[in-house]
Amino acid sequence: MSNWMDERLEALVTRLSPCTNCPVANTARRINLPGQKAVIAVLDNLMAILYPGCHGHDAVDHETGEQMLRRLLIETGTQLADQARRAFAYQCEHDRCRDCGDCREQGERAAAALFDALPAIRDMLQDDIQAAYEGDPAARSTMEIVMSYPGIFAISVHRLAHALYGAGVPLIPRVMSEYAHTRTGIDIHPGARIGPGFFIDHGTGVVIGETCVIGEHVKLYQGVTLGALSFAKDEQGNLVKGIKRHPDVEDRVIVYAGATILGGNTVIGHDSVIGANVWLIHSVAPGSKVYNQEPKPLIKV
Amino acid sequence: MSNWMDERLEALVTRLSPCTNCPVANTARRINLPGQKAVIAVLDNLMAILYPGCHGHDAVDHETGEQMLRRLLIETGTQLADQARRAFAYQCEHDRCRDCGDCREQGERAAAALFDALPAIRDMLQDDIQAAYEGDPAARSTMEIVMSYPGIFAISVHRLAHALYGAGVPLIPRVMSEYAHTRTGIDIHPGARIGPGFFIDHGTGVVIGETCVIGEHVKLYQGVTLGALSFAKDEQGNLVKGIKRHPDVEDRVIVYAGATILGGNTVIGHDSVIGANVWLIHSVAPGSKVYNQEPKPLIKV
Amino acid sequence: MSNWMDERLEALVTRLSPCTNCPVANTARRINLPGQKAVIAVLDNLMAILYPGCHGHDAVDHETGEQMLRRLLIETGTQLADQARRAFAYQCEHDRCRDCGDCREQGERAAAALFDALPAIRDMLQDDIQAAYEGDPAARSTMEIVMSYPGIFAISVHRLAHALYGAGVPLIPRVMSEYAHTRTGIDIHPGARIGPGFFIDHGTGVVIGETCVIGEHVKLYQGVTLGALSFAKDEQGNLVKGIKRHPDVEDRVIVYAGATILGGNTVIGHDSVIGANVWLIHSVAPGSKVYNQEPKPLIKV
Repeated sequence: MSNWMDERLEALVTRLSPCTNCPVANTARRINLPGQKAVIAVLDNLMAILYPGCHGHDAVDHETGEQMLRRLLIETGTQLADQARRAFAYQCEHDRCRDCGDCREQGERAAAALFDALPAIRDMLQDDIQAAYEGDPAARSTMEIVMSYPGIFAISVHRLAHALYGAGVPLIPRVMSEYAHTRTGIDIHPGARIGPGFFIDHGTGVVIGETCVIGEHVKLYQGVTLGALSFAKDEQGNLVKGIKRHPDVEDRVIVYAGATILGGNTVIGHDSVIGANVWLIHSVAPGSKVYNQEPKPLIKV
Repeated sequence: MSNWMDERLEALVTRLSPCTNCPVANTARRINLPGQKAVIAVLDNLMAILYPGCHGHDAVDHETGEQMLRRLLIETGTQLADQARRAFAYQCEHDRCRDCGDCREQGERAAAALFDALPAIRDMLQDDIQAAYEGDPAARSTMEIVMSYPGIFAISVHRLAHALYGAGVPLIPRVMSEYAHTRTGIDIHPGARIGPGFFIDHGTGVVIGETCVIGEHVKLYQGVTLGALSFAKDEQGNLVKGIKRHPDVEDRVIVYAGATILGGNTVIGHDSVIGANVWLIHSVAPGSKVYNQEPKPLIKV
Repeated sequence: MSNWMDERLEALVTRLSPCTNCPVANTARRINLPGQKAVIAVLDNLMAILYPGCHGHDAVDHETGEQMLRRLLIETGTQLADQARRAFAYQCEHDRCRDCGDCREQGERAAAALFDALPAIRDMLQDDIQAAYEGDPAARSTMEIVMSYPGIFAISVHRLAHALYGAGVPLIPRVMSEYAHTRTGIDIHPGARIGPGFFIDHGTGVVIGETCVIGEHVKLYQGVTLGALSFAKDEQGNLVKGIKRHPDVEDRVIVYAGATILGGNTVIGHDSVIGANVWLIHSVAPGSKVYNQEPKPLIKV
């Protein structure tokens, strides 16, 4: 050990030693938390199940496809159930419920709920990919979309995270959605409900809040926010959690880049078009076209 | 296998088994697609060729530098030609051309085209780095720029992806550009033509469309969009692909943060300055200064 | 070797051979630069020290926690001092100072400065996490925030990078801040001074410049820029480096999404609220509410 470290090591250990009450340490009776790497490994396997033969995996025919599926389902199911068990056990410790015996059962039930939803999720994703192909003149093939479109990656992860959110799993859905946010710049809370045929183009800066409800065949561009207008507080001045704070966007709405739509009572009626950079905090009727006044920049030559 | 999985495994395998027509599976006669990881490995090697001794590689002197170069060129050339062959083979199968024999030849020809372009690409990147150093007061050294500036990473990847796009390689250029998008938040379509001395500062949210043509010594800030105004449709209502949809930006133009410039007929004349958050859908003459009216927010104390 | 490569290999080696003066090669007397991967490994270890038992590490109790801390401190200290030594050696070569003998000493002194700051950094981060919990209705637990909130990741990395910036370490602080930018879309220059209780929600597109000074309990949303208004140039037309270019934001200020605040003389007085998309290039008094005129988009049904 070098001198500079030797001089200060014990003082640092004392000052940095994990405190039992501080929020930044997991000292809870040695319950191991779900890990980001393990959750991402589960996601990678789920993507291989949903998009067989893509993402660098070997091509599959019908027969090898079934073998691969069987192996991936078993392996991923085990991993996911174990990560979910850890998340329930942590919550159980945190909220001081008594009986940790059924954390395992809860984890398995949550994993089963996601697996039962996989066929419907894959059907929705096929609609999403088709919507991307029809909506982007630069798209050459659906395979290009599967392999490289950030909007498809983000909605793929979201549909999986949303199933775990629905099953009440703590921690893991947000780790999943934040992984997609990291990769794509698209921040979709796992609680948001999103219909099939959803396409986000480019995507960087998109924010979709927890209580959004989005219909079928909706299209968003980069920088769109579907957010909260303000936060209700209780009598003690604490934020009220769990109420509807984010807008509804009905079927076939298009929202162009940089538009901001806020509020839990705001409903964008079906077949509306919201122009770029529009700021909207109230509902609009179905079929509305909403645009900013034509901006007239000053031009000097 | 745990009970919950045993109960549902065969039903899931049946329902998720790769369908031959669905867009999300690669079941095409066992042709292996290019893989994201393999493409990223190629990119990492190309970066080591372009920036010798940086990015965690050992320092090189003239002699060891030549040895390293020779080794990297051979290794990377083989990898790239193989990935390109896969991409051509996939396209060949997809478009039902007959003779897959020359996919290998096409892959090698594309790899050779990129390698022949490497010296010119490195020259352009040196101009890009110099532009970053001259354009950013926070830059301490050119090495800091090489090691940590997202704009330099994005344009480095773009210049490589653009060479493969020019060689007609399917799939791989978009996988490369999306890797840069993931790392930097800068979304440059591989088709965009960009002159030397190009600098993007900060960069998150920048979008540069497929048919943009950008001159020399252009500077962009974060959140700038060079995009399409609207999409032409054919008589069947399908998007027309392959036409000029994005603007031209001439030499020495500066575009400040959040500005949006749209349309395939829009030309920003050389030496113009486009202010922050400007919305521009028509051409401006050389030397124009384009600014929003001074916004006057309401201030209550 | 395949034919296509054999034909062009020697010509490419000659044309790409590392030049001694070009900015993109490290040929400096075989001094190895700090590497991105090594710097990121240091950061990962520092996160394990700050957030014991989280991020996929095993849970710790008091006793195992101390053992883990001791091991991590020694290992990380050695790595960091070595990377800092490389950075000082590179600068030393670059600026032609004579005596490279004390680059090691400088590296150790810088690592010691960061380690001595760790307890204070952890205290500030606990305030940051508490601020996130109190400020976001979607937050279920502080552990969810530690594991998945991009704003917390970005400020954690910033507080570490800022300590190294303060110790005068070249290159490494920017590599660290750019790693956080890549992961979160939040671009904080390591020079920025930021008080405790800092929270950035969502975060994509946030830019905080080098000479910003931010007080306590400040809250920012996605897309906020705290930037430079214009760059001073010297008589030769070169940018002047090292002067105050970015705003001050005092205690308990809230800045909503997409707001832009520019200029080294701009001070946002304490307890002010800056509305979404506001453009502000002058100071405002404490307690100001600054909002755009209510925008009225055109709506056609």
